[in-house]
Formats: sequence, C-alpha cells, structure tokens
Amino acid sequence: MESKFENIEKKTSSELDEILGKPFKVLNDGFVRVVDYMGNDESIVQAARVSYGKGTKKLNEDKNLIRYLLRHRHTTPFEMCEIKFHVRVPMDTWRQWIRHRMASVNEYSTRYSIAIDSMQSTEPNLWRGQAKWNKQGSEGYLSEDFGLKLSKEEAEFHKFAREIYENRIELGIAREQARKDLPLSTYTEAYWKIDLHNLFHFLELRMDKHAQFEIREYATIIGNEIVKRWVPIAWEAFNDYVVNSKTFSKFELDIIAALINNDKEKAIKIASEIRWLEYNENGLKSNIERTEFESKLINIGVNIPW
Amino acid sequence: MESKFENIEKKTSSELDEILGKPFKVLNDGFVRVVDYMGNDESIVQAARVSYGKGTKKLNEDKNLIRYLLRHRHTTPFEMCEIKFHVRVPMDTWRQWIRHRMASVNEYSTRYSIAIDSMQSTEPNLWRGQAKWNKQGSEGYLSEDFGLKLSKEEAEFHKFAREIYENRIELGIAREQARKDLPLSTYTEAYWKIDLHNLFHFLELRMDKHAQFEIREYATIIGNEIVKRWVPIAWEAFNDYVVNSKTFSKFELDIIAALINNDKEKAIKIASEIRWLEYNENGLKSNIERTEFESKLINIGVNIPW
Amino acid sequence: MESKFENIEKKTSSELDEILGKPFKVLNDGFVRVVDYMGNDESIVQAARVSYGKGTKKLNEDKNLIRYLLRHRHTTPFEMCEIKFHVRVPMDTWRQWIRHRMASVNEYSTRYSIAIDSMQSTEPNLWRGQAKWNKQGSEGYLSEDFGLKLSKEEAEFHKFAREIYENRIELGIAREQARKDLPLSTYTEAYWKIDLHNLFHFLELRMDKHAQFEIREYATIIGNEIVKRWVPIAWEAFNDYVVNSKTFSKFELDIIAALINNDKEKAIKIASEIRWLEYNENGLKSNIERTEFESKLINIGVNIPW
Amino acid sequence: MESKFENIEKKTSSELDEILGKPFKVLNDGFVRVVDYMGNDESIVQAARVSYGKGTKKLNEDKNLIRYLLRHRHTTPFEMCEIKFHVRVPMDTWRQWIRHRMASVNEYSTRYSIAIDSMQSTEPNLWRGQAKWNKQGSEGYLSEDFGLKLSKEEAEFHKFAREIYENRIELGIAREQARKDLPLSTYTEAYWKIDLHNLFHFLELRMDKHAQFEIREYATIIGNEIVKRWVPIAWEAFNDYVVNSKTFSKFELDIIAALINNDKEKAIKIASEIRWLEYNENGLKSNIERTEFESKLINIGVNIPW
Repeated sequence: MESKFENIEKKTSSELDEILGKPFKVLNDGFVRVVDYMGNDESIVQAARVSYGKGTKKLNEDKNLIRYLLRHRHTTPFEMCEIKFHVRVPMDTWRQWIRHRMASVNEYSTRYSIAIDSMQSTEPNLWRGQAKWNKQGSEGYLSEDFGLKLSKEEAEFHKFAREIYENRIELGIAREQARKDLPLSTYTEAYWKIDLHNLFHFLELRMDKHAQFEIREYATIIGNEIVKRWVPIAWEAFNDYVVNSKTFSKFELDIIAALINNDKEKAIKIASEIRWLEYNENGLKSNIERTEFESKLINIGVNIPW
Repeated sequence: MESKFENIEKKTSSELDEILGKPFKVLNDGFVRVVDYMGNDESIVQAARVSYGKGTKKLNEDKNLIRYLLRHRHTTPFEMCEIKFHVRVPMDTWRQWIRHRMASVNEYSTRYSIAIDSMQSTEPNLWRGQAKWNKQGSEGYLSEDFGLKLSKEEAEFHKFAREIYENRIELGIAREQARKDLPLSTYTEAYWKIDLHNLFHFLELRMDKHAQFEIREYATIIGNEIVKRWVPIAWEAFNDYVVNSKTFSKFELDIIAALINNDKEKAIKIASEIRWLEYNENGLKSNIERTEFESKLINIGVNIPW
Repeated sequence: MESKFENIEKKTSSELDEILGKPFKVLNDGFVRVVDYMGNDESIVQAARVSYGKGTKKLNEDKNLIRYLLRHRHTTPFEMCEIKFHVRVPMDTWRQWIRHRMASVNEYSTRYSIAIDSMQSTEPNLWRGQAKWNKQGSEGYLSEDFGLKLSKEEAEFHKFAREIYENRIELGIAREQARKDLPLSTYTEAYWKIDLHNLFHFLELRMDKHAQFEIREYATIIGNEIVKRWVPIAWEAFNDYVVNSKTFSKFELDIIAALINNDKEKAIKIASEIRWLEYNENGLKSNIERTEFESKLINIGVNIPW
Repeated sequence: MESKFENIEKKTSSELDEILGKPFKVLNDGFVRVVDYMGNDESIVQAARVSYGKGTKKLNEDKNLIRYLLRHRHTTPFEMCEIKFHVRVPMDTWRQWIRHRMASVNEYSTRYSIAIDSMQSTEPNLWRGQAKWNKQGSEGYLSEDFGLKLSKEEAEFHKFAREIYENRIELGIAREQARKDLPLSTYTEAYWKIDLHNLFHFLELRMDKHAQFEIREYATIIGNEIVKRWVPIAWEAFNDYVVNSKTFSKFELDIIAALINNDKEKAIKIASEIRWLEYNENGLKSNIERTEFESKLINIGVNIPW
C-alpha cells in the first residue's frame, strides 16, 4: 500500500488565526467575522497535485500552480478550502446574499426568538439617486436638505415599526406573525459557510461596481480583510485573472486585432457590419454592446476608434 | 447499436395541462400557478427501468414500482420530473421558501422596478397567539377586540410604509435604497423551478403541522391541487410512505415490541432505563423525547403504557 | 453592535487529531484517511443556537440539543462540520461513491499520469454468489474449488490488462487513450471533502446491508473509526435515530396499533384490505411490501401475526 | 390579484420536437438522443422579465435580451430550460461526464442486470500519440503498422474480458462482483437531465480543444445537433460570447493597450517586468503564461511583439 500522495498535515493560516473571531464593522450596525476555516494556499496545491500524481515536476512552484489553476478555471482544488463566517446584515442585503445557493446557512430565527432590535439607518448625506441609464443602479446623492428630512422620517418609521412589533409581542401574538411587518432594514445574523471556489464567485459578483452598495461593503471586507490574509496567493491570482481581467467577444476580438494591426478602417468596418455604428438625426444611435466595448477600451487606456 | 432502453416519447399529464397557467389564490393576495413542467408518473418508471435494464419482469406494474422506489428512498428517478411555478408570496414567507437551495429562481426585482403595491394583511379574527410549549409555533387566536385594533394598526402601518416608499421614489431616491424599509409583508413574485424529488422534500417540511401557517397554505395547494394532478401515483405513494408514515428510534422500537408482545412491564423498564420516567414533586418530569413518543402512540390510537 | 451570539473559538477534536493522516486499510490495497477537518460536536450546537438566539435555556444541554436536531431532521447545523478524506479505492467502487453529488473531489488523473499499478484482487474463498431474491445483491460464497480457479484467472487477467496498458504507454500512445481498457478493479486515489450532514446521508446508504460489500467496507470504517472519534455525540444520535430506526407506512402503523391493542383480527383485516394476504395454490402469494413488514417485525422481536 | 407577469403558455421547440428520440451516433457504438425537455428561447426571456417586472421597455427585443443576459453572465434565466438525454457512452468517458454534479442521472445498473455487451474499439489509424508539451493531451496518430497490431490486441483483450465476465456469471457469481474487471471501454447507458445554464458550462469545457476526443465528440453533437435546434438564439449568443471569446488578465490588457497605442516598446517593457522575457543560453526561456498569451495573439491574427 504505497500512495502516490505526499505527506499530510493540517493546513492553517497564522495570519487568519490572528483575526479569528474579530468582528469587522460594516454599515451602521453590521459586521462580519471568521468563526472557523479549513485549509490554506497549500491545500489548493495539494488537491491539484492529486490530479497530477507524480507528474508535477514542471509545475513545482506552488504559486505558479495556483495561478495556473485559477487562470484556467480549474476550480475543484479551490473547493478544498472552506470558511465559516458570522455575519450581521440587514434583511434586504441578506435577500441578495442568500441567492448564492452553494453555501451552508444557519440564520437567527425570528420565529423562535425576538427580532434583533436594530435597523439599517441612513446618514442624511447618503441618500442615493436613481441612476439615469442603469435601471438597477444608483448615482450621486441627494442634497442634504432632502437627506435630513429623509433620515428623520426613516428614524420615525423605524420607531413606529418597532413599537408595532413590540406591541404585538406584548399582546401575546406569536413571534412568527408579529414579525410580518418588520422593515427589510432590520438586522439579522447568520453563520455562513462556503468553500473558496464559491466564495470567489460570490466576491466576483458582489465586489463588482454593479453590485448594490450595501452588499459590496460586506464583500469588499471579506475580500480585502479576510480572504487576502487566508490565501494570499490565491487572492492575488483572483485579482489578476478574474477581478482585473476583461473578456472580449468574438466581434470585439476582431476589432482589437484590427486596431493592433493599425487598421482603424477595418475596425470601423467590423463595427458597422454588426450594426454598432448606426446613425439617426441625433448622431450615433445608442447601442448597449458598443457602449460596453467603449468602456472597456477607455478603461485600459485606449481611444475609441470611431 | 441496440439499446437496452424502451421507446421514447414526451411524457405529459392531461390533468395538469388543464390547469396550466390557472392561478390558485393563497392568503389575501397571493397565488401559485404552474407555468411549465416536464415528465409525469411514467417518467419515474422510465428512469428506474434504465437502472434495472432488462431485469424488470417482476416489477412490471408501474404503480408498484413507483411505490417501491418511494418507500425505499430511491430518489433519483423522481428527479426526472420537473415543474415550474409562478408564485406571488409575502417576502416573509419567501425568506423561508428560498432556504430550499435545490431549485431555480427568478424573482421580481425591486432594484430594477417599483415594488409591488400589496402587502399581506390580517383579518381581525386571525391574529395567532404564541404557542406555550413550542417556542416556534402559534396556538389559538386573540379575541376579536384586540384583533380589530391590531388589524387597524396594521393597515395604518402599511399605508405609512407605502407612503414613505413612494415618497422616496418621487424624490428620485434609487429604487435599491428606497426599498430598504418595505415591510416583510410586501408581496413579491417569482418563477420557481424544482424537480419532483426536491419538491417532495419541500412539501414534507412545509405541509407539516409545524410549518408556519403562511407557507403551509402554499405547500398544501401545491400538493393537493397541483402535484396530485401531475403525478397521481407518486403523490399517493408520497402520502402513504412519507406524509403519513412515522419513524421510531431504536428505543421506541424496543418499547413497541414489548407492547406488541403484551409485556407492558418490559416497556416501562426500557423507558425507565433511558430516563424517560423520572419523577419530581409534581409527578412525571417533562421529557421532550417521551412526549414525542406519546404523541405518536396517541396519534395511531394506542394508549400510553405508563 | 452587540451580537446575539456566544463567543467564538475554533473547534477541534483531539481524538480525531490523533489519527489525522493515519491510513485505515480497506480491501486488499485500499485505504481511507482524514486529511483535514473543521468543527466538532460543539459546532453543531453553536449553529443551532444561532437559530434559537437567546431562547435556548430549555435546550441547554448540548447532547440533548444535538439529539433533538438529528431526530427532527434539522440538518443545516450538521452542515457546519466539514471533513476531507484521502481515499484509495477501486474504480468500480468509486463509480458508486461519486454518485453522491454534494461533495468536493479531486481525483488522481490517469490522463495526466500513469495509472496506479494495483487492482482489487479476490481471495479464493471470497467469490460471492448471486442473491436469489434480491436482483442486486450477493449471497454466500462459491466453493473454494471454483474460487481457486477464479482467483487464478483474475490474476492472469490483471497481468494481461497491465501488460497491454504498459505496452501502449511504451509505444507512445497518449495516456488518455492507453487507459481505455483498464479494468474497473484498478485502484484510483482522491481527496473527498464533504459536510457532516451529507456524510451521514452517505453512511446511511452505504453502511446499509443492501450496499455492495466493497463500498460498505469503506463506509463502515469511515463511520466507526473516524466519525465516531470526530463527533461522538452526533454519531451516537445518528445510530439511535437513523441507522437503528425504522419507518412504518400508514398501513403498517394501523397494523401495529391493532397488534398493540391486542386485536390480531383487526391487524389481519387491515392486511387483507391492502391485498397483502392473497393466496394461490401454493399458499400465501409473494408480496414485497408484506415481506418487508414481516422482516421489520422479526427484526424487532415480534411474531408475524398471520 | 393582478400580477406583473405576462400571460403564460407552455414553451416548445418544433425543431427539437422533430428529432425527439432520434439517436445521434457517437464513437463506434455510442449515441445521444433527446428524451424530453422543457422551455425554449422564450422561457429565458420570460424568466428575465420577471426580474425586470414592468421595466422592460428598452430591452424589449427578445434576442437582444438573451444576448445581454449571456454576455453579463446573468445565468439564472437559463436555468429555466431543462433537457433530458439518453446517452450510451464508454465508462471511461462517463467517468469524466459524471464529474458535472449539477445534473440528474439514472444509469444502467450492472449490479442489477448483465453488463452491456459492447466496448469502445479503436480503428487501426486512430491510436493517438502522447502530446509532447501537454501532459494531459494527445497529438497525432501512430503509424498504421503499430495501429493494426494494437487494434488486434485490443479485440483479443475485449474478447478475453467478456469471456471472463460471462464465465463468472455462468458460475453464479453475483453480478456486482462479476463486473469488477470490466474494461473502462465497456459501454453504459444513462438518462442525463440538466438545465441549460449547467449544460452550457458542460459544453464550454467539453467542446473545448483541450477536452479528451471521446467526450468532445458527445459534447459537439449535443451542441451542434441538439442545443442549436432547441434554443437557437441562446446558442448563437453562447458561441459569440463564450466559445469564441477570450479573457485577458490585467497584465495582458496592459500589453494590448500598449500595442493598440502603437507603443511596442512599452508592451515589451511590461512583459519584461512580469518576467516573461527572461533569457538563458538557448534564447528566450519557456514561460507558460507568455506562451498562452502568444497563442491568443496568433489566434486573433496579431503578430507577437517580441
């Protein structure tokens, strides 16, 4: 009985151990903290090397291997790392959070216990305007005049909501029914356990600038304060190959090739053929896909060719 | 190329086809309806028979096969049936619903669109009391005097909550932020797609008398009005072998055996050994597990032996 | 920011730590060993208590809480424990193993590396006969005369299979193609990571006497040597409430109630009504469901009433 | 009760209906065919529009919406389409196939029934050489001299393997044990049910040129013959935005930007800084990541700048 596998020992991360249990504050009254975890950068390497058996001589530097795996979306070795968080988060944010199905969850039960007496409140200068072009985004802030009024109204509403809740409880209404009108801003708490592959997917979506501010705050702290300490090599690779990468469609690649080959005319011809450059009386007609491509060019420091 | 498999044709259910798209009303303003589905009782049989290949002569009656599979928790053939619902449900109920991870979901987005203008309201005679013994249950109803007051207050609160929401929208607050204080009673809508195995699991938990009233209402209609029409044989088996079955622990089995063998003394001796029959000054001390067993006995029509 | 949660510290199991990395031999050349893990009995309690918030005074004994959770199939707290195994197992057994989807896997790649030079071989006295009644079972052993012949033939076949494989490799055939005729008895190795809830499900199915001998050997060792050390309280509860429990259908409960109430006639009447007691010229006609019930009765020490 | 949702009717695909049940031949004796399905391109749109509620005026062209969803990895609407295949495939290929966990499977059981009497055989001109640089790939074919010898040996081995199997069965060995030495080339059959999102993921990995020839054959037919008929718009989008797209890392984007800006020197400087351009006595040292980037450039028709 001679295994192909290297020797085995429990993998830990001393940097993460240092902040175990320490709550990182998020929003006005939320937090996130690590409760337990399993594995580290080495576990990823270890798992990948099972697949490779003896044949690992060429990829023997751990860092290169992790970067290779992440670049090529070989995701299973990243599943070998697992982490458990304790989070405190407004129910509205939790509604988005829980849509990530590949995780284990135990949430504080307002059916069993009295609802947490805390709601997400908004500073007068932090009322966000509806984004003009992005139907599901926000843009800028309302003037503080309005903000003050809104924050005052919010506070009154929270007070009213809590009174109604507590009044019901006092009258002997079942907790499961008393809670029915709690505002979505009410904080809840949960244990949330997930593997690194699925956590990266969560972070990719929720650290993104299109994610809603609130969940982005949590995701950013999980990424920058926790994952970075836990699996520093994988975290760096994730940033280089996922967060800061860009994907180009078949058409975009053709245009880029033309631009590199210094053939602007051809680039414009391709864009025209896919109807990106249609005009009406006001000039260039709006086209979502073209706009997305233009943003990518601007973002990497290249002028728009048309 | 000669397959072991029988001939293949699309499986449908004419009974289910008749109610396709028809909304079944639930609560004051919710509903559930079937949008699409795949497979029927025959699909379960078909899938099981792949596993059995040619060797199916003895189990050749479809009904017996389905009942056998369900009785023995051979769950994979039930995954071959898939159904898609359109539901309208209070967010509070949806919070429980969505905990079932093995399903596909597209929910109405209050980030993208204006929140649905409807909340779950409560009739004056339907305010439930907190259960005395079951911390997460309800029991009885409050007197209508209190009920009238509570329902009035609820209506005022809903009005206030909606005003605040609409006021924010009017001021140009981003929808994603304006929604933060919507009460959990606000209705949401979603497509919910799930396979029959996982749907049975949902129904087992949510049709149960310990499930909260609201979600039980949805589950009961899904079961009795929809699944029963869709896969009548599997539905009957599910009722016989899951819903109306009972599981007994090692100790309970020993006690039951003693009772059947007419040896009440032995039954009591076993119960004593596992410390179910300890006394204090008030008589028999409370013991959750013993109480559960007693309920099972009473439920099947047997007297408690001690 | 005051959390409802208790203080947090990493949970370990000193008993499990003692056997970390130690291979338990299975079959002629397989093994299973723990590589890493997260959580212990306390993690289950901790997770459950989030749900219960402060309201845990009555269930405050850890053991009782774990037993309660398991008895009532409150499965999510058990997902908070995670374990990673390194296994060496014949591909035929692995084909069954891998059907459990809720796990993370990294397998030794015979596409990348030379196949492991070891196959599951059979002792002359361990060739199992086909079960008469159970189409997917085995029963008894062939006489050693035949066994000697079979084991010799097996050894020759293994030798031939390996020669062909190595010959192909030597000729420069791609490993991914050379492996195509490896016997299913060839050993593979893998990391297999799973949470306790899903592991219990695996063990329930694979420690069962209907599971195939080979995978039962692995499951039994995982259960008795590893899980028992890791989460002793949950393991005991699993045995009392799952492994050694029995579930009775609606009909079976009626019959049992009649038997306890000393009304054998009624028991027989119920059995007749559901057509369990039909006769032909050879006596009682065979009926799978009745036979299953009879086995349960015999198993708990009760005589068959008809 | 007024829903935000459009009217509902069952979605079908007449093009797919035409080939329902028709087996597409793969390899020497395998096949794949559609048994049942649910939804079509319209179901994707329908699901997305729930999320968007009323706010769909701007994205109202179905095709654009589907393309937008796929481009932005809004994957949940694609889960609303479900398809069930019947496949016949060598066990070696099935070992790779089954690694995709998000699917439902019922496989032909060689525990219950006699193993299918067919193995994947290899034409003399189709023995593939081991790839030089890619440890897990193949490259070119062996000369037919060797091929003839290998195919003859393969046939003999298959014959021997089957004889041993049938001999064991005849002697009364349990099927579950008799099968233990079946070659991986033995065909198995299964029902395989999966949603469109997960099927696209399967196809992305398995139609890729790095996938093994055998599974690529299946994937290609599923894509080109089946998915293309089923959801033609989604299929086109999948090709434009996934199959034929390329992703560039942070560093690669910087180099591309420099090239477009006609600053070759800067491009080379960036490459040097990340140590892509190190030399030894034989010239440029090999570097996997640089080679990958070079391939991408060549592939889109751009010269390597160094």
